[in-house]
Amino acid sequence: MRPYVFVNLAMSADGKISTRERRQVKISGSEDFERVDLIKADADGIMVGIGTVLADNPSLTVKSARRKGERKAAGREENPARIVVDSMARTPVDADILVKGSGKRIVAVSAAAPAGRVDALKERAEVVVAGEQTVDLAALMEALAGIGIRRLMVEGGGTLIWGLFQAGLVDELRTYVGSVVIGGSGAPTPADGEGFLAESEFPRLTLTGVERIDDGVLLTWQVKKEEGDRSLRG
Amino acid sequence: MRPYVFVNLAMSADGKISTRERRQVKISGSEDFERVDLIKADADGIMVGIGTVLADNPSLTVKSARRKGERKAAGREENPARIVVDSMARTPVDADILVKGSGKRIVAVSAAAPAGRVDALKERAEVVVAGEQTVDLAALMEALAGIGIRRLMVEGGGTLIWGLFQAGLVDELRTYVGSVVIGGSGAPTPADGEGFLAESEFPRLTLTGVERIDDGVLLTWQVKKEEGDRSLRG
Ligand SMILES: NC(=O)c1ccc[n+]([C@@H]2O[C@H](COP(=O)([O-])OP(=O)(O)OC[C@H]3O[C@@H](n4cnc5c(N)ncnc54)[C@H](OP(=O)(O)O)[C@@H]3O)[C@@H](O)[C@H]2O)c1
Ligand SMILES: NC(=O)c1ccc[n+]([C@@H]2O[C@H](COP(=O)([O-])OP(=O)(O)OC[C@H]3O[C@@H](n4cnc5c(N)ncnc54)[C@H](OP(=O)(O)O)[C@@H]3O)[C@@H](O)[C@H]2O)c1
Repeated sequence: MRPYVFVNLAMSADGKISTRERRQVKISGSEDFERVDLIKADADGIMVGIGTVLADNPSLTVKSARRKGERKAAGREENPARIVVDSMARTPVDADILVKGSGKRIVAVSAAAPAGRVDALKERAEVVVAGEQTVDLAALMEALAGIGIRRLMVEGGGTLIWGLFQAGLVDELRTYVGSVVIGGSGAPTPADGEGFLAESEFPRLTLTGVERIDDGVLLTWQVKKEEGDRSLRG
Repeated sequence: MRPYVFVNLAMSADGKISTRERRQVKISGSEDFERVDLIKADADGIMVGIGTVLADNPSLTVKSARRKGERKAAGREENPARIVVDSMARTPVDADILVKGSGKRIVAVSAAAPAGRVDALKERAEVVVAGEQTVDLAALMEALAGIGIRRLMVEGGGTLIWGLFQAGLVDELRTYVGSVVIGGSGAPTPADGEGFLAESEFPRLTLTGVERIDDGVLLTWQVKKEEGDRSLRG
């Protein structure tokens, strides 16, 4: 069993999620900001890779006071469980994700993570060990389902998203396409890593939504299910 | 004066125009194929970079016999003028773009192109020299306008498109977003090259069209005009 995994990201019209210097840039506007806050408030967990923590230092908290209140009224934490995929336990102990807002934090590390760093993180987060050298994403998903995470939002970056697609762990992809061109063969994209080589390996999608938001457009894709997949989407 | 320049390309849902091995892949379907043939038949010229010639060996001819006939009936060549941007005159003399179909061919080279290669290409194409080491795209555009090219379609790849955006020479960007994920930090994207670093440099777009085609969606963007721009779009 694993959570229903949906990736949400913003890219430029030329498919970049930041500049080649990995500087965070404004790709969407206030209407999209509200949309993202809403789906975040709806999720049980929200996941990023260590690259995003180090580049952007996001807190990943729900921004709207009303939505936080609604979560509490429903007996949930104000924020979804925040999860960092971080093989070597490099998450800084003062990262916003660990210090801002209330709720559960999980750092997923590999067996190769230095014990000292793991111990330091244990002060601020639950540490899940999955995989030998890098985080085994499928095993991590099993562990997350085991602690009650049914809807998991993935915010990026491109390396983590690639890892999830490669492992067949993505159910849905939402890309907000914004009205700028960033360029750069070295700029992060929605799915980086090694990349697929043969067309037969490409994950296939079904376009389920097209919606204009701010100056751009939100595309919603469902990933066609593979044989034997055990996602909680049923 | 320069032609009205529109870029047309197909990308995966994660912003790739081919695999990291630069292998041409099927991103769109038959309905989109027809759309592209139609706008090609409408153009005065069609441009690619030498990278695309070497990777894909496209002929860039109009495919529909009816459309070729209509062009002829209107007193035009069957195919738009086919233009390769190729600083060092590396275009093979037996490239499909030089041998398939009728109509004008132009190879744009720099002053650094070896004379022997330039002479060989002159047997099959008009050679335009623009720029010292690499092709000066703005000067090339002036030359193309000078020989009557008013509507210029650019098919890619990402390095040429980047060069055009950087030089402020793009009027319109049409991206067909297909229902596959390709992945790969090394896979070509719609705008490669160096990339912009500051948000103030990003070309700004206006979304003018959203249309579902085959299993994907065609996004049409107009590039916001810069001060002093002399595009034929008026
Ligand atoms: N526009 C948007 O919507 C958006 C959203 C988020 C991020 N971003 C941008 O994305 C960029 C960061 O992306 P990134 O690709 O550098 O980093 P990332 O995807 O956030 O993190 C990748 C890291 O996760 C770790 N990891 C552990 N196990 C993994 C596995 N099985 N598969 C994949 N990764 C695994 C690896 O580091 P270890 O081996 O050290 O564990 C890997 O380098 C930043 O520029 C940020 O601004 C943009
Ligand atoms: N999906 C699609 O719609 C689509 C369409 C076309 C291509 N593609 C893919 O794109 C890939 C090829 O792209 P690419 O980026 O390698 O090559 P490219 O953009 O076709 O050609 C780039 C080359 O043009 C030359 N050039 C000369 N002056 C330039 C200037 N001022 N600015 C920019 N370039 C200049 C440079 O080589 P010199 O210095 O030697 O002149 C440069 O390396 C292939 O994988 C192909 O399959 C996909």
